[in-house]
Amino acid sequence: MTTSSSMVYNDDTICAPASPAGSGAIALLRLSGRDSLSIALRHFKPRLKSLSAETMESHKLYFGDFVDKDKIIDEILLSYFKGPHSYTAEDVVEISCHGSTYIQQLIIESLINSGARMANAGEFTMRAFFNGRMDLSQAEGVADLIASHGKAAHQMALRQMRGGFSDKIKELRTELLNFTSLIELELDFAEEDVEFADREDFMNLVGKLKQELSSLINSFKLGNVIKHGIPVAIIGKPNAGKSTLLNALLNEERAIVSEIPGTTRDSIEDTIVIDGFSFRFIDTAGLRESTDKIEAIGIERTYEKIDQAKLILYVCDISHINKTNVDDVIREFGKYIEDSDKHFIFVANKIDHLDETPPKLKELLDYETVFVSAKRKENIHLLASTLVSKVKEMNFDDNIIVSNSRHYEALKKSFEALEEVEQGFGNNIPTDLISVDIRSALHHLGSITGEITNDEVLGNIFGKFCIGK
Amino acid sequence: MTTSSSMVYNDDTICAPASPAGSGAIALLRLSGRDSLSIALRHFKPRLKSLSAETMESHKLYFGDFVDKDKIIDEILLSYFKGPHSYTAEDVVEISCHGSTYIQQLIIESLINSGARMANAGEFTMRAFFNGRMDLSQAEGVADLIASHGKAAHQMALRQMRGGFSDKIKELRTELLNFTSLIELELDFAEEDVEFADREDFMNLVGKLKQELSSLINSFKLGNVIKHGIPVAIIGKPNAGKSTLLNALLNEERAIVSEIPGTTRDSIEDTIVIDGFSFRFIDTAGLRESTDKIEAIGIERTYEKIDQAKLILYVCDISHINKTNVDDVIREFGKYIEDSDKHFIFVANKIDHLDETPPKLKELLDYETVFVSAKRKENIHLLASTLVSKVKEMNFDDNIIVSNSRHYEALKKSFEALEEVEQGFGNNIPTDLISVDIRSALHHLGSITGEITNDEVLGNIFGKFCIGK
Repeated sequence: MTTSSSMVYNDDTICAPASPAGSGAIALLRLSGRDSLSIALRHFKPRLKSLSAETMESHKLYFGDFVDKDKIIDEILLSYFKGPHSYTAEDVVEISCHGSTYIQQLIIESLINSGARMANAGEFTMRAFFNGRMDLSQAEGVADLIASHGKAAHQMALRQMRGGFSDKIKELRTELLNFTSLIELELDFAEEDVEFADREDFMNLVGKLKQELSSLINSFKLGNVIKHGIPVAIIGKPNAGKSTLLNALLNEERAIVSEIPGTTRDSIEDTIVIDGFSFRFIDTAGLRESTDKIEAIGIERTYEKIDQAKLILYVCDISHINKTNVDDVIREFGKYIEDSDKHFIFVANKIDHLDETPPKLKELLDYETVFVSAKRKENIHLLASTLVSKVKEMNFDDNIIVSNSRHYEALKKSFEALEEVEQGFGNNIPTDLISVDIRSALHHLGSITGEITNDEVLGNIFGKFCIGK
Repeated sequence: MTTSSSMVYNDDTICAPASPAGSGAIALLRLSGRDSLSIALRHFKPRLKSLSAETMESHKLYFGDFVDKDKIIDEILLSYFKGPHSYTAEDVVEISCHGSTYIQQLIIESLINSGARMANAGEFTMRAFFNGRMDLSQAEGVADLIASHGKAAHQMALRQMRGGFSDKIKELRTELLNFTSLIELELDFAEEDVEFADREDFMNLVGKLKQELSSLINSFKLGNVIKHGIPVAIIGKPNAGKSTLLNALLNEERAIVSEIPGTTRDSIEDTIVIDGFSFRFIDTAGLRESTDKIEAIGIERTYEKIDQAKLILYVCDISHINKTNVDDVIREFGKYIEDSDKHFIFVANKIDHLDETPPKLKELLDYETVFVSAKRKENIHLLASTLVSKVKEMNFDDNIIVSNSRHYEALKKSFEALEEVEQGFGNNIPTDLISVDIRSALHHLGSITGEITNDEVLGNIFGKFCIGK
């Protein structure tokens, strides 16, 4: 591993609770480092009396008492993962005890008194990175995986953790690197004026790389909304039933989630997960409050909100559409549709009040329309599945999608460097100057997977992990 | 096991998250029942390609992917505990996955779709009970252990879980049972008027049992305060510095706790754990608010509060004690001391304001006195250790202590039945009538360990467990 990091890695023994904080049936704690096993065994009285560090097998579970001095702290299961066949590639010991915070605290205290130290945030995963168990973007995938709440975000993080994204980046970097070494070779023989690297081949490669980078860069827009939730604006005239609709959607989701005990809804009231995609209703509360004033204050503020949205639900009281206003309604749709970046759904609400067919129905139906009664919760599931189908239209498939803003920045910088390279060759700039930009492109690609890294970046990445990971 | 329970136990397969709710590095889920292994293996793609239900060893950890249909949900560690060598004595499978609630939800859903069902609260432990892995009071010890927050409560619950208390109860019950069988034998031969059981021996036994039961019953007072926190009242004249003192104590504790990352203080602001004992400051907030009015409203209400307390901290501004008021102060101490049930500590506050030795110091020091400055946080640790020593005076040692109100009620009923037995013999009541009371005494003892039980009791006990335990 080429690393510019001066971060000191040693294999002293760290410990931390690994299961979620709080009280539960079982809690899991782990140790990693040189003395994991000997520290753990100092506190372990196995039921199997003959057990010792020598006879202990890797990847087996042993039942016994966790003791401190002669005091029994708990009955535990202990397992030992002999390095390098462990998460960190070091010797790892896992302890599962009764899930009280107090017992966890006593066990951690005992381990610390026997020479372990409390792990820093992300330190287990950082060791896995330093020991070559995973690269940097895979490590970031681990954190994203733990944080993921919807199917799409989960699948994206899983793919990243399993190295799909890294492989792509490494492949691009290797291609560039191979060619670059020829150019560097030329520089060594500069006085002899030879060309090891074919200029045209090289320009073709740079063009191809730019294209691949560009498609990764563009995928970030989608990756970002998948990760943080797809921003949706619910808009419409006062009394169209916007907040009733939002509540109906939230209730629909609540009903689904509450079937599985132990799962709780996100505390952000206005985020819901439908079919694995999370939808974030941006500042709809604000819109709701200002319902009566929207027209008065002007359309300005509403547009600002809409600007952040990827998806627009235009709610309309279908029973109030008549010959007088139907053209206004259709004209207003046009305004929102203009912005081709957004997806638009026309929610024809209050079908329970509908007495006769509204005029110009055919033209209204040119838009993706869902007829609902928010009040009576009719067809809400239809609206939910329409939301999902809109996301699927956003080209979410098995392509590699960039979801991490650090990767996005690095890809952009690498792309810019390649543009400089292209221009340099076009302007016949000397090879040694161009090679600076090539090195920069390589550097930024390498920073994604951690082949190139530094303390600050590592600190940023692993500092965001929870303790115990 | 003699059980009057009609509760149907079958070995269908249950599953649930076992680690605390929420997000963390690792989460643990488990399955128990007939099809645990086959259901789990339907979703497990081990890295070791050759693995199957046949080749899988008990108590070993296997790394691989958890899949649903062909979709990878997570990389997991799977372990299998072949019954009866498991917590429930059934086949158990444990899965440790990345600690996101979303992943846990997906895994549980997959398991349910493959034939497992969501476990009820406490169902794993209930199965352990039904399968004779533990008796009822041990099962209750498990719940207490998870809930315990201080050293004393923790040790008490651990002892109960490990069967110390059960053994004692079973021993008493067996003694009574042996004798009773002789008496029942007499009833079978009633017409022949023989005495198999020596009356005097029996009366001695009943007396001995009553004494043992009585000591267990009495221990409940202590057990209960250990479990729920020792109630402490901080009292004293207005401006004596009561709330400053409480804050100083809370801060002292906070400083100790916050040294260990990941531990958080109890949310009840006025409960603190010192040296493993929790102290609960009863309604001191109320006392604090009404500081100015205490004298006016009369001492009545204060006394009510004090009545609940086990420990009284009488706070006094030592710099204001002079020849005029010293006798009043000493007289007031007397009032609190009268109630011998309570422990009294005299907190001589504001030593930073003390200019000269207060009068009658010798008489004041007859009481357990701690000199502090709450404002400057001087000697607060001394007060803390005095609090602890007071609890230790309450005879907390390695004796068996009853902490569960269900056990307390059963012991009392058993005791009362034995009293009836004693009186019955004294009044020469016929043996067959007396035997009703003997059976009642046996019944109540048996209900503690679950030798005698019913649906309602079991429902009450296991319903209070968390899901996954």
